[in-house]
Amino acid sequence: MKIELKEEERIDDLEYKGLKIIQNKKGFCFGLDSVLLSEFASEIKPNSIVADLGTGTGILGILLCGKTKLSKMIGVEVQQEVAQMAKRSILLNKLENIFFIKEANIKDYAQEFIKEEFDCIVTNPPYKKQNTGVKCENSIQLISRHETEATLEDFLECSSYMLKEKGSFYMVHRPERIADILVNMRRYHLEPKIITFVYPKVDKSANLVLIKAVKGAKEFLKITKPIIIYEKEGGYTQTVLEMYHRKEVEDGR
Amino acid sequence: MKIELKEEERIDDLEYKGLKIIQNKKGFCFGLDSVLLSEFASEIKPNSIVADLGTGTGILGILLCGKTKLSKMIGVEVQQEVAQMAKRSILLNKLENIFFIKEANIKDYAQEFIKEEFDCIVTNPPYKKQNTGVKCENSIQLISRHETEATLEDFLECSSYMLKEKGSFYMVHRPERIADILVNMRRYHLEPKIITFVYPKVDKSANLVLIKAVKGAKEFLKITKPIIIYEKEGGYTQTVLEMYHRKEVEDGR
Repeated sequence: MKIELKEEERIDDLEYKGLKIIQNKKGFCFGLDSVLLSEFASEIKPNSIVADLGTGTGILGILLCGKTKLSKMIGVEVQQEVAQMAKRSILLNKLENIFFIKEANIKDYAQEFIKEEFDCIVTNPPYKKQNTGVKCENSIQLISRHETEATLEDFLECSSYMLKEKGSFYMVHRPERIADILVNMRRYHLEPKIITFVYPKVDKSANLVLIKAVKGAKEFLKITKPIIIYEKEGGYTQTVLEMYHRKEVEDGR
Repeated sequence: MKIELKEEERIDDLEYKGLKIIQNKKGFCFGLDSVLLSEFASEIKPNSIVADLGTGTGILGILLCGKTKLSKMIGVEVQQEVAQMAKRSILLNKLENIFFIKEANIKDYAQEFIKEEFDCIVTNPPYKKQNTGVKCENSIQLISRHETEATLEDFLECSSYMLKEKGSFYMVHRPERIADILVNMRRYHLEPKIITFVYPKVDKSANLVLIKAVKGAKEFLKITKPIIIYEKEGGYTQTVLEMYHRKEVEDGR
């Protein structure tokens, strides 16, 4: 199939089951956070109806379509240009029968979605608080990285509305926001159940956090073994190598 | 000095500057959590007025008297028998001019303490929620380990009352309570600033968490490098060995 590429766009190989993604060199390009979250959420049950809030280029949804047997994935994206790019990536991967893009602002959830329709929500929301940090980025990067269109609380409120009772919520975020995350999860009845901290090296501060919450669940939280990205001497750890080379491992079975 | 030992009691060496502790073999004996918290809080500024809430045998306060140049330490303990043991340990270490034991329930803070008198609070509170877990323990162990006399929220409410504005709060607790901890810290204006997770091994779930909060501080939280206790092959890691042998390192200077 011939997929149109616009100026400044390129196709990147996801190194997993032949999946590919269209990215804009000047926009937000996918990183380790999406790959880690797709692994963290790969326990999603077969036939689940899943939403990816703030889907961006669709990277997380595409990886999850490869790693799970979900029945339907809805990617919600507020930026029209980015949403169009995600649609072309879906065609490129022949996922158009299970992965659908909805152009909407998650703050309008009550108008846009049916209450408690989803089994599972995944999200890699903007990390930075409104009016903080450097903002000399272009508008696509700005909306992808900063809480300009919707805040962390908006993402959690929307998720709580969309999720069935006992539905699962998976998110990647920055560790410095963990208090905001847990306070707001409790506010919207998303009980935190599993947290994994990601450390670049064993002797460095955490720079990412993965969180699973379950709507209306009982209180009991596990802080799993840490994910360490690099060995002290440099080079990826075994954990990360296995994540990236699962394709080869699986093909070799 | 001759210090009376009651039946079932013994004197243990803290392996640090010759400090010692009286413990009851059938009661709650100090563990790695107190040692880790004393290291975590060893940044306490000279001349600080410090309270240790739920001081137990006094282990944490005694270690901090050795590791910092604090001016006054008040250990608050609700159990009379344990408080008496702490008083004898203070005499044993000749700390009676700076470390004082107050027999009180922290829930009575408004009657027992002057508001905003303290620069710093340290605490190793009971970890287990009321009415959870095994309770075939004797009453000293029960009160030391379970929230029978005071809850986590009571400890945080009391600390917020006792601390000066911008005063520091240091706590060790179980990772599964981290959501309860952060939600209640925010409720009582103790802003979490530094969190360290402690993992028994690099491939095991965390089993302790160290938290520093500052009363009325701005929001910014750091998740530091992890503390790993044992090497994969067994034996303490370098971090823990250095913690326990600081005495020798310092004596060798």
